[in-house]
Amino acid sequence: MRDILEAVAAGELSPVRAEAELAGYVTGEAGRFDAARGERRGIPEAILAEGKTPEQVASLAATAVETTGRALITRIDDEGAAAVEDRFAGGDATRERRGSTLVVRGADREPAELAATVGLVTAGTVDGPVADEAEVVCADAGASVDRIDDVGVAALDRTLDQVDRLSRADVLIVCAGREGALPTVIAGLVDTPVIGVPVSSGYGFGGDGRAALSGMLQSCTVLSVVNVDAGFVAGCQAVLIARAIDGAGE
Amino acid sequence: MRDILEAVAAGELSPVRAEAELAGYVTGEAGRFDAARGERRGIPEAILAEGKTPEQVASLAATAVETTGRALITRIDDEGAAAVEDRFAGGDATRERRGSTLVVRGADREPAELAATVGLVTAGTVDGPVADEAEVVCADAGASVDRIDDVGVAALDRTLDQVDRLSRADVLIVCAGREGALPTVIAGLVDTPVIGVPVSSGYGFGGDGRAALSGMLQSCTVLSVVNVDAGFVAGCQAVLIARAIDGAGE
Amino acid sequence: MRDILEAVAAGELSPVRAEAELAGYVTGEAGRFDAARGERRGIPEAILAEGKTPEQVASLAATAVETTGRALITRIDDEGAAAVEDRFAGGDATRERRGSTLVVRGADREPAELAATVGLVTAGTVDGPVADEAEVVCADAGASVDRIDDVGVAALDRTLDQVDRLSRADVLIVCAGREGALPTVIAGLVDTPVIGVPVSSGYGFGGDGRAALSGMLQSCTVLSVVNVDAGFVAGCQAVLIARAIDGAGE
Amino acid sequence: MRDILEAVAAGELSPVRAEAELAGYVTGEAGRFDAARGERRGIPEAILAEGKTPEQVASLAATAVETTGRALITRIDDEGAAAVEDRFAGGDATRERRGSTLVVRGADREPAELAATVGLVTAGTVDGPVADEAEVVCADAGASVDRIDDVGVAALDRTLDQVDRLSRADVLIVCAGREGALPTVIAGLVDTPVIGVPVSSGYGFGGDGRAALSGMLQSCTVLSVVNVDAGFVAGCQAVLIARAIDGAGE
Amino acid sequence: MRDILEAVAAGELSPVRAEAELAGYVTGEAGRFDAARGERRGIPEAILAEGKTPEQVASLAATAVETTGRALITRIDDEGAAAVEDRFAGGDATRERRGSTLVVRGADREPAELAATVGLVTAGTVDGPVADEAEVVCADAGASVDRIDDVGVAALDRTLDQVDRLSRADVLIVCAGREGALPTVIAGLVDTPVIGVPVSSGYGFGGDGRAALSGMLQSCTVLSVVNVDAGFVAGCQAVLIARAIDGAGE
Amino acid sequence: MRDILEAVAAGELSPVRAEAELAGYVTGEAGRFDAARGERRGIPEAILAEGKTPEQVASLAATAVETTGRALITRIDDEGAAAVEDRFAGGDATRERRGSTLVVRGADREPAELAATVGLVTAGTVDGPVADEAEVVCADAGASVDRIDDVGVAALDRTLDQVDRLSRADVLIVCAGREGALPTVIAGLVDTPVIGVPVSSGYGFGGDGRAALSGMLQSCTVLSVVNVDAGFVAGCQAVLIARAIDGAGE
Amino acid sequence: MRDILEAVAAGELSPVRAEAELAGYVTGEAGRFDAARGERRGIPEAILAEGKTPEQVASLAATAVETTGRALITRIDDEGAAAVEDRFAGGDATRERRGSTLVVRGADREPAELAATVGLVTAGTVDGPVADEAEVVCADAGASVDRIDDVGVAALDRTLDQVDRLSRADVLIVCAGREGALPTVIAGLVDTPVIGVPVSSGYGFGGDGRAALSGMLQSCTVLSVVNVDAGFVAGCQAVLIARAIDGAGE
Amino acid sequence: MRDILEAVAAGELSPVRAEAELAGYVTGEAGRFDAARGERRGIPEAILAEGKTPEQVASLAATAVETTGRALITRIDDEGAAAVEDRFAGGDATRERRGSTLVVRGADREPAELAATVGLVTAGTVDGPVADEAEVVCADAGASVDRIDDVGVAALDRTLDQVDRLSRADVLIVCAGREGALPTVIAGLVDTPVIGVPVSSGYGFGGDGRAALSGMLQSCTVLSVVNVDAGFVAGCQAVLIARAIDGAGE
Repeated sequence: MRDILEAVAAGELSPVRAEAELAGYVTGEAGRFDAARGERRGIPEAILAEGKTPEQVASLAATAVETTGRALITRIDDEGAAAVEDRFAGGDATRERRGSTLVVRGADREPAELAATVGLVTAGTVDGPVADEAEVVCADAGASVDRIDDVGVAALDRTLDQVDRLSRADVLIVCAGREGALPTVIAGLVDTPVIGVPVSSGYGFGGDGRAALSGMLQSCTVLSVVNVDAGFVAGCQAVLIARAIDGAGE
Repeated sequence: MRDILEAVAAGELSPVRAEAELAGYVTGEAGRFDAARGERRGIPEAILAEGKTPEQVASLAATAVETTGRALITRIDDEGAAAVEDRFAGGDATRERRGSTLVVRGADREPAELAATVGLVTAGTVDGPVADEAEVVCADAGASVDRIDDVGVAALDRTLDQVDRLSRADVLIVCAGREGALPTVIAGLVDTPVIGVPVSSGYGFGGDGRAALSGMLQSCTVLSVVNVDAGFVAGCQAVLIARAIDGAGE
Repeated sequence: MRDILEAVAAGELSPVRAEAELAGYVTGEAGRFDAARGERRGIPEAILAEGKTPEQVASLAATAVETTGRALITRIDDEGAAAVEDRFAGGDATRERRGSTLVVRGADREPAELAATVGLVTAGTVDGPVADEAEVVCADAGASVDRIDDVGVAALDRTLDQVDRLSRADVLIVCAGREGALPTVIAGLVDTPVIGVPVSSGYGFGGDGRAALSGMLQSCTVLSVVNVDAGFVAGCQAVLIARAIDGAGE
Repeated sequence: MRDILEAVAAGELSPVRAEAELAGYVTGEAGRFDAARGERRGIPEAILAEGKTPEQVASLAATAVETTGRALITRIDDEGAAAVEDRFAGGDATRERRGSTLVVRGADREPAELAATVGLVTAGTVDGPVADEAEVVCADAGASVDRIDDVGVAALDRTLDQVDRLSRADVLIVCAGREGALPTVIAGLVDTPVIGVPVSSGYGFGGDGRAALSGMLQSCTVLSVVNVDAGFVAGCQAVLIARAIDGAGE
Repeated sequence: MRDILEAVAAGELSPVRAEAELAGYVTGEAGRFDAARGERRGIPEAILAEGKTPEQVASLAATAVETTGRALITRIDDEGAAAVEDRFAGGDATRERRGSTLVVRGADREPAELAATVGLVTAGTVDGPVADEAEVVCADAGASVDRIDDVGVAALDRTLDQVDRLSRADVLIVCAGREGALPTVIAGLVDTPVIGVPVSSGYGFGGDGRAALSGMLQSCTVLSVVNVDAGFVAGCQAVLIARAIDGAGE
Repeated sequence: MRDILEAVAAGELSPVRAEAELAGYVTGEAGRFDAARGERRGIPEAILAEGKTPEQVASLAATAVETTGRALITRIDDEGAAAVEDRFAGGDATRERRGSTLVVRGADREPAELAATVGLVTAGTVDGPVADEAEVVCADAGASVDRIDDVGVAALDRTLDQVDRLSRADVLIVCAGREGALPTVIAGLVDTPVIGVPVSSGYGFGGDGRAALSGMLQSCTVLSVVNVDAGFVAGCQAVLIARAIDGAGE
Repeated sequence: MRDILEAVAAGELSPVRAEAELAGYVTGEAGRFDAARGERRGIPEAILAEGKTPEQVASLAATAVETTGRALITRIDDEGAAAVEDRFAGGDATRERRGSTLVVRGADREPAELAATVGLVTAGTVDGPVADEAEVVCADAGASVDRIDDVGVAALDRTLDQVDRLSRADVLIVCAGREGALPTVIAGLVDTPVIGVPVSSGYGFGGDGRAALSGMLQSCTVLSVVNVDAGFVAGCQAVLIARAIDGAGE
Repeated sequence: MRDILEAVAAGELSPVRAEAELAGYVTGEAGRFDAARGERRGIPEAILAEGKTPEQVASLAATAVETTGRALITRIDDEGAAAVEDRFAGGDATRERRGSTLVVRGADREPAELAATVGLVTAGTVDGPVADEAEVVCADAGASVDRIDDVGVAALDRTLDQVDRLSRADVLIVCAGREGALPTVIAGLVDTPVIGVPVSSGYGFGGDGRAALSGMLQSCTVLSVVNVDAGFVAGCQAVLIARAIDGAGE
């Protein structure tokens, strides 16, 4: 602790970062940020933009970058992204946006590495943004990501053609909307743990992702599931498994 | 009409049967029976035993046999079946029970014939009684029934092994509980009309057949669907389609 | 396969079309398109515009026209239609829009023919767009479509006046919102297979089409059902039945 | 009030009946009974047997007979009915049971008379017990009841045959389960107020009466509705309307 | 019929009105209008603007005015109202809008009269537009309307102060959102038939009117109910009851 | 701690009680019992009998009595009560059962005292067992309980007659099933905090207590609510409030 | 009453305020305002802006300030706030807005005082506006408010760090979205009454606050609950409890 | 394949086992058994007893033991267990029953070994049977199981006391009913992947496990989830993860 305080005194450590290292969380303009989560949980705290003002999002992003080297923001819209852009404009942090997911990386952030592969599968075009959330998290953690798009069960050949590739992954994330049968079909073909992600595509009865969710929960094969559209959560869970595998392999 | 009345006078036709032919429906002890439905709709009125007393079931069965040559009873339990047994004991009508489905055929009932094949598929053992309802209706109508059991998607080879056989049917009924993915997978493999029947197996969220129902309604392939456990309705719909095909082929 | 490759080399066949013939699906800018579905399933893959960007829709439409001769797009809005218009502007493909349904036909696409009639019935004005989807699919497949609008059960005479016409169809699609009683009433009057389409008109409890859906599933007559507003699916199912009838009649 | 008390003193009025006349309600062994409701509301308080012990039912029945001349008990089972039988055994009150509805009438209860007719319609056999509740209430109030059973829409002729008879009623109660279309069809044919009663027959999705309830609420004709299986409530509402008509006619 | 045709020939009757008198319904640009409903059902067909284009609404309104003398339009927004305004601009039909309800009356429409009073009660300010629908229908039918606003049960004195006035109505419509207790409380105080209208005010669990709907269906007093926000239906049902009372009083 | 261990050594304290005092919880045959909860939370841990075997219930009851002086058991059936009876037979602990609630008190348990009154109100007879749970908890905590039964809003006079008595309570628990309007009406009449308890009486739509629950959550007055039938929780919450009042008054 | 009328005559009391004092409620342009509620219930009537026009909100606010000294407006948007601003512009009433909550205080309103502390806890940033409603009500009533933000259970240390501070409150309001576990965890740590407020943050299944609501109702500790996002109701309930405590302490 | 057939010929391999090795599945009296699943998926096919007759269960168990060395049967009742007992009586297969889970092991089945630890946690006594399913599967696969019972969050010390032990597991299964907060709390404390299992304990709204399910899906920490009461599925998923870890460590 003395080291930290001396580093602050010497101007080598910002007060925010010092607070994060000492208390675990930082109190910014837009609430507390759980800076120690990455340490404690092995996965960073993401900033869910939905339900927050653009200013709150930008403020939390700044805190996140300062204390943990990068910010992961999910479900951001154009207005929120612009606020983040403004906040970091002129600095040396890089911004990377994929659909509604935005990552800001500080210049001094070193890439992580993880000796494990996450297979990331989508059933169709509309599942893309949900898979993007998972991909960003896995890549941030240093896992290899093998993404296979558009292999929905309506044209089963598209799925069967990929079995070998699917088998090589250490853990699979499978995103599917409508009836959500793809994770069930894949989990019947490989001996890899499969995490199903229901997607809120479709319309009519069950079209809000509830058909896919209940179908995955009722699967006659073995799956575990995250909430509708929760690509970020699936990515984090895959990282935790990948890290356990990585640790065992050392 | 004169013919009918003279036949009654001559004792060649029972009053009940005469009423059925003249008015279309017959008023028995347990309510009206829609004797003309087979004529009008091409499918007979079934007697849903659930919610009726054993006596009501037996009475309606007697009316059905007298006016249309046979009675189709669904969702019957042992007590109801015993009441029917009592009612027809000593007579020449044959009884055939499959699980909760019971058929009584009058001695003079001639078997129907239909130049069409209904493929009837189940995903697992628990789907059997629901498929039985459909099978009884299709067989009663004279259709060929090709039944393929236990081809659930958890072991996809079991399904794929049957594609040729599935393709040869004129119309397919596919019964599946849990996540109900089987009709979707099959409908992606053949160009036959598929009728999905969700089955109320499973437990937990969606375990009352609702996961299977919503999954079939959301299917990314083309299906039409009947209610949960409604094997009888699926069988009737298949018969109507089979008859249209049969008629066109003449 | 040699033939195909030589045709590509000779410039007689585009690479996209060659890929479609060899692999069954084509990978475009906006994901894979299942070009072989028409062959395999007897019905084409439609492009559901909802949840896709206008660019994705236009790109998939171009792939569809190139590989299968036409594109069927459902649930398209003005922005999406404009993107498609832009994409095909100046070319010889014709565009035909009915409400939220859009068809693009390549110049060399020959009309199909099918010796069967699909009766297409709506209960009221608001059911129109859903019926349009079905009509477009049936017409594309070459079936005769006999459309009867505005025969809701509130004024039963309007329904009863049409019984003869309804009876002449080979298969019936009946679209109805609110309580969705029309398919039940019609199915009690004819011996044709009826496919019910619940429509999300109405308001209050069950007004999202759920009252109509559950009513059709509970129908005391024989129906099979598709999801709420799923006019496209109903049209495809009718085509599959019509084709089976057509095949038997040859 | 003096009169009442003097009558009690003279032994001409029981204390229980006096309390009822003075306070409006009577406190018995099994809770308060709202003896003044018939006066105040024009309809008596019924005793819902479900959820009460047989002893509580019998006790409330005794209080009801003593203070209002009769007891109306709904949803009673055999055990409850036996308890009531025991309670009144040897007395001069008459008991009349129809399925799960039981009426006990004191010897001095004079029949009511009401110059109005309630039409009471059922779609099928299973709707009988619910209609019984309504019939008992209407008859108790002195209304004429014209009951028409088994006119479900699956065989529409059965319904249409009754239009004249339906038109002659002053108010109609229509009980129907499954998809519950009968009240809608009838309300489209007559200019009488129709009260729909959903019945919890059927199975699968919406089979607990919810399909019928939502269908009646969504009806494209004009209906008002009571809860699933609430025959008693429908009967009371019909009585209130009948009494308003009767009053106007005087 | 000859009379009608001769009147058309003589230019005394428009073809549209003639079709309405002969066939009962009229086919306009925007679908069939059930012109005979007022005759047959005693209540006019309303035009539900929701889900229709402004042009369809205006067209149906024109048909309605031409054949029945007035048009009742519910759930209209500003755009729809403008379209109706345009359609009738310059003519002699009067327009009257109350919130989302719009009435157009032809110049030759004679006001109806009905010797009965409908009590119309709201619990709070937000129930106003729903009550407006009911009020317009009742007034159109010639009934007296006694409207009592803002008597919610949170301040019970406001309710109790009105008991005498409530008792004088022949039939009561009570509109209430949130927990919807007002119809229950009122129905316990008077012997008039009460029609409950749940209103979709409130927020959170049950805030879409479902709490009020289920509360009214479960009421421990006697109510009949219409769907959430269905002021028009409640008004029509009240008119049917009022007319029966009026008829009896003649 | 030394004291405790010496008391155990001296045989003055059982090992079980010592464990409870040292660790806060006790591990018995049927799982851990949170003996310190009364100390920590001010309310004891109750034993929910539902879902446990009779042996597990009896074992937990024994642990509870030994460590906290008494056991509160809710939702017990006859079999469970018999097991408890067996366990304590011959000992000096007293048993008191009210419906499905059972209290066992050790001989040395001193009654608590609390200078606050809990008003406990039921709408009807069927709410009794739920109110019993609350009453037992409040009495155990030493609060005065003023119970007022059968004051449902269908006969509003019964409610209004009690306003003074209701006003004298420090906190009110109001149990009501069906539409659950009673807490709303009462909370509009007094300035006491009201805790609503929905009861699962009634039948049909919302009859499992959901109508009452959603009605109380939507109340246009101020209420806080516990789960359906959760009389025990309501009682505990009232005790916590009563204790805060009692503490302030000292 | 004479006093009041004389004060009106003398111009010392406005007619509106006189009506409020005499009748308890005031009829303004936008409906009745329950001016006596604060007196009767101990908590003021709030104006729920949602579902009302800006003019109605401003009008009710004016009535509230005139009769009770201040107006509490919840769920107001910018348009509504502007209307209120306009109404009071130039006057001496102060306006204070926190998110969607707005308070207008008349110049002569004296602050209330209450010797009790309400602990107000949020799990995260998005719970802020709901907590604001509660805070405004408690502060208006004169209670001390100890607000602790951002102590969600994902980083349990943040919660545990606050136990002492939580224990010092007389009553706790805990606002939490997502899974809503925070009130359960807190209620397990302190002996203070806890009121849980589910917040409609999150997305997917249960994301509308239903997961949090059902979790709080099922809590394995003791909680009472208000509806989703009902910060105002929670605040009022806390005030009622605080006032009871305050009263006892005098 | 020749080897297999020669072994059959030589009587060294039963025909059933040979079919299993050649085709992957075996057709017995009660349907097909997926004998190759263990090979293909790394987890065996379990026999879900619910919904099957005792005879079907026993027959499938015999097939399972013969082809894969053991049978895992879930949700078995006493009748089913007796049928299995009868089937294997006198043989050398051992039977082990834990609640509703039954394992039959052939004499020649060698125990598996897996260098990974599954932490298995329950919140309370009623979660035991669900956890038993998971424990049986994990033990069968050779994983070490560290089971920690009764650590529900109502007494948070019980949870916090176990953090070190929880941290040592490679993967955690956490079973919890009621509000299901335990997996959320634990997942916030460790960096191990957590699989949540909602349990259908509790009563009232959400008491069927739906509160716990939706709470786990909404968790503000990272979880993946299986269906309500799906201990078997959670166990299998843990085994797949454990095996991936085990494989990496070799």
